[in-house]
Amino acid sequence: MSAPNKPIIVLVRPQLGENIGKAARAMLNFGLTEMRIVNPRDGWPNPSAGPSAAGADIVLDQAQVFDTTAEAVADCEHIYATTVRKRGVTKPVVGPDEAGKLMHSQAGRHAILFGREASGLETEDVALARHILTVPINPEFGSLNLAQAVILCAYEWSKQAELVQPTAEEGLLPPASQEELDGLIAHFEKLLAPRGYFLPEPRADATRRTLRSVLTKPGWNHLEVRTLRGVMTTLGRGPREES
Amino acid sequence: MSAPNKPIIVLVRPQLGENIGKAARAMLNFGLTEMRIVNPRDGWPNPSAGPSAAGADIVLDQAQVFDTTAEAVADCEHIYATTVRKRGVTKPVVGPDEAGKLMHSQAGRHAILFGREASGLETEDVALARHILTVPINPEFGSLNLAQAVILCAYEWSKQAELVQPTAEEGLLPPASQEELDGLIAHFEKLLAPRGYFLPEPRADATRRTLRSVLTKPGWNHLEVRTLRGVMTTLGRGPREES
Repeated sequence: MSAPNKPIIVLVRPQLGENIGKAARAMLNFGLTEMRIVNPRDGWPNPSAGPSAAGADIVLDQAQVFDTTAEAVADCEHIYATTVRKRGVTKPVVGPDEAGKLMHSQAGRHAILFGREASGLETEDVALARHILTVPINPEFGSLNLAQAVILCAYEWSKQAELVQPTAEEGLLPPASQEELDGLIAHFEKLLAPRGYFLPEPRADATRRTLRSVLTKPGWNHLEVRTLRGVMTTLGRGPREES
Repeated sequence: MSAPNKPIIVLVRPQLGENIGKAARAMLNFGLTEMRIVNPRDGWPNPSAGPSAAGADIVLDQAQVFDTTAEAVADCEHIYATTVRKRGVTKPVVGPDEAGKLMHSQAGRHAILFGREASGLETEDVALARHILTVPINPEFGSLNLAQAVILCAYEWSKQAELVQPTAEEGLLPPASQEELDGLIAHFEKLLAPRGYFLPEPRADATRRTLRSVLTKPGWNHLEVRTLRGVMTTLGRGPREES
């Protein structure tokens, strides 16, 4: 197996084609080849990307474009949201090294989300992730550009590949895909909405994020998700009539 | 001592001011501030450097310029020559991580030499160094630019220092007590039982164990358990009448 558990690099709403090219170059420097791009500002393909890729054309040629972050990671089991600074989140925070280890030791597809150059990831993007990936940067000068953030993650992935023995957690199933998880969350929402759970309306988005966060944390596998789908189907029914 | 054994970053005959600025930015991201420049092609100061430093002006302002590499490192005790590919040298070869460790464990001034963008260090420069510092890069695509090489070294120095506390899991709460978890599980069961979830009766125990297992896996904290208690209370109500 030549390329175990290579993470997918997901650029969310990137602005400059030049930065996309530089990210591709950073990836290929450490053997990563799968790039996904969510809603790039200047469309795709972008003529500015090629020259700054410095020969990493294969990454750009194979890049896939998606409308939303959720679609871009629908087939992934492990999602990391990169943030430079800590936010008020309750997800586990890992550095590039720890994330690299996880990618080699946990089965399933791994994806790392990188936000827009100036502003980073939106709250909704972060909500999709099970882990926050934070580069432990100078607290007085946190100015990491996109390609630099990508290269540090790619470097650590490559480095950990040599260090981590593929410790087969064979008995363990990988987490369900993001798509399955989304299906479960949608099931919760479908039952909760008509019961007024998301009221008052101004709090609805925050309540949805909290619920998503709670349901994302477990990393349930597909059997567990199926069990919970059964639970939700049952709860959607009223109590049986006494017979 | 706030910054022990910060390495000096020595750019040897750099070509583009823009790359000098980017290197400064990469340095300051991980707390490095001392840059030395050997015989820059376009002289110094270079007006192209500032804009690409993205605020790391202090590094550029304090940068010192030398005519030769030997002069630039004359006051240093430990010199590392970066090369992307190994050459026919007989010096010890270290990666950025090992170099970072050495910088923290060995007294004296450490300097890392980075060569000209296109061609790298000359043999005479390498001859000054005690160690070769090689980034373990994709053998089929070794295209690391100057700022990227600098940032990987700066990152590893910082990481090995543990100066920057890896934003740990401060925000994370411990799992809820078993009592709270049992309360949640009981809540599920109370709603599920009258809806026939645990039927047929011979399978009831196994079904209960499966449910408990799924709900135990996440290690939810008490806030998350409280959220789910709210979800269950809501689900226990029927849908609202249309009003």
